[in-house]
Amino acid sequence: MKTIDVCLSPELMHLYEVRSRTVVVVDILRATSCMVTALAHGAESITPFAKLEECLNMKSKGYITSGERDGKKVDGFDKGNSPFEYMGDQVHGLKIAFTTTNGTQAIEKSKNAKEVIIGSFLNLSSVVKYLLLGENNVLIVCAGWKGRINLEDTLFAGAVVEKLKDYLGPDCDAPLAARHLYNLAKEDMAQFLNNSSHVKRLNRLNIYRDFEFCLSVDQYKILPRLQNGVFVV
Amino acid sequence: MKTIDVCLSPELMHLYEVRSRTVVVVDILRATSCMVTALAHGAESITPFAKLEECLNMKSKGYITSGERDGKKVDGFDKGNSPFEYMGDQVHGLKIAFTTTNGTQAIEKSKNAKEVIIGSFLNLSSVVKYLLLGENNVLIVCAGWKGRINLEDTLFAGAVVEKLKDYLGPDCDAPLAARHLYNLAKEDMAQFLNNSSHVKRLNRLNIYRDFEFCLSVDQYKILPRLQNGVFVV
Repeated sequence: MKTIDVCLSPELMHLYEVRSRTVVVVDILRATSCMVTALAHGAESITPFAKLEECLNMKSKGYITSGERDGKKVDGFDKGNSPFEYMGDQVHGLKIAFTTTNGTQAIEKSKNAKEVIIGSFLNLSSVVKYLLLGENNVLIVCAGWKGRINLEDTLFAGAVVEKLKDYLGPDCDAPLAARHLYNLAKEDMAQFLNNSSHVKRLNRLNIYRDFEFCLSVDQYKILPRLQNGVFVV
Repeated sequence: MKTIDVCLSPELMHLYEVRSRTVVVVDILRATSCMVTALAHGAESITPFAKLEECLNMKSKGYITSGERDGKKVDGFDKGNSPFEYMGDQVHGLKIAFTTTNGTQAIEKSKNAKEVIIGSFLNLSSVVKYLLLGENNVLIVCAGWKGRINLEDTLFAGAVVEKLKDYLGPDCDAPLAARHLYNLAKEDMAQFLNNSSHVKRLNRLNIYRDFEFCLSVDQYKILPRLQNGVFVV
């Protein structure tokens, strides 16, 4: 039986062997939700950067630059971190350079993996189907918040573990914990997350609409994969 | 309102400021359960060591040496890591030097805290009462398993967060997650933990009796505190 594990924080990545695994990077609020949205709306590619400066430099190479730190758009960047900025004509055919507080850091730490894909609730079923059909063991890497765990990424991990429970065995306690939490939350994830630290942070930033959209399941049927450092569908 | 946070793995300790906090170290299976048992049964003190050799050297200084690696007693040590080795005349009046795979590593990483106490289900109410009456913010440090999170330590953290919910506010998502898991598990923790990685490990070692004992709540009314590097009641 293939196995599935969950790394609840990028700060724990050194504990996991990833060279033989498919890694799913998830940052529900909001990096990977934005990436999935952009690629579903016809963006040509998304290039993730851990560092702000490197991302901003891509502007001169014809890229749209997207940057967020602490939940806020960064001066000089074309776009911030709301999925509603990544729809329709706003992104169609464009190459996007992306850097965020947590999500692109988690991607950076996953680069040694056999393959890296992008997960979000927006493309949950596509992720599940891909992992089911693939040959590799799986590691879900939760972006968290500055190294700490967060509930929304953990719930996504739990959803994947739950849906694959008959096919992929848990490697450790983290997938069990995530699955329990998802099953507790699944009837009303928004309500479940209402007291979470990140939702409070988003509410302060007045972006509850983003939060609701990022929790909506299966809006898109795409699977972004990292190829030569660039995410494409 | 005072705050409470949970560090789910010693590998995340660098994310937490502990100098102003009371840190509760927990390693349910079985280091902190053994320590509480020993001190409740009249052991004079417990000196924790991260390194095997340093612990073993204490034998020549009149200490009982207790050592475990990967769940098994270590050659040359007087005792292993079963709470049943730390009862009655086996420990009364003795000074114990202790090293374990996870628990004493977590203690080592907590040494900069304002104060360090030892938590287990065996002395749960004493821990809760102490934290309630104390003036400091709280961090519960779960020993986990070689850097990974485990369910049993997370449940203990959740129990403390739950019991103090009207008095200490959660700092972050980890205490929320732990509390949810505890509330899900509390009616039958043994059943809840049956599929956890550590319980499977213990079952392979044929020590289910230890497991059941370590989950029994409030066997003892003591609160071990670290004073000059030594735990005393």
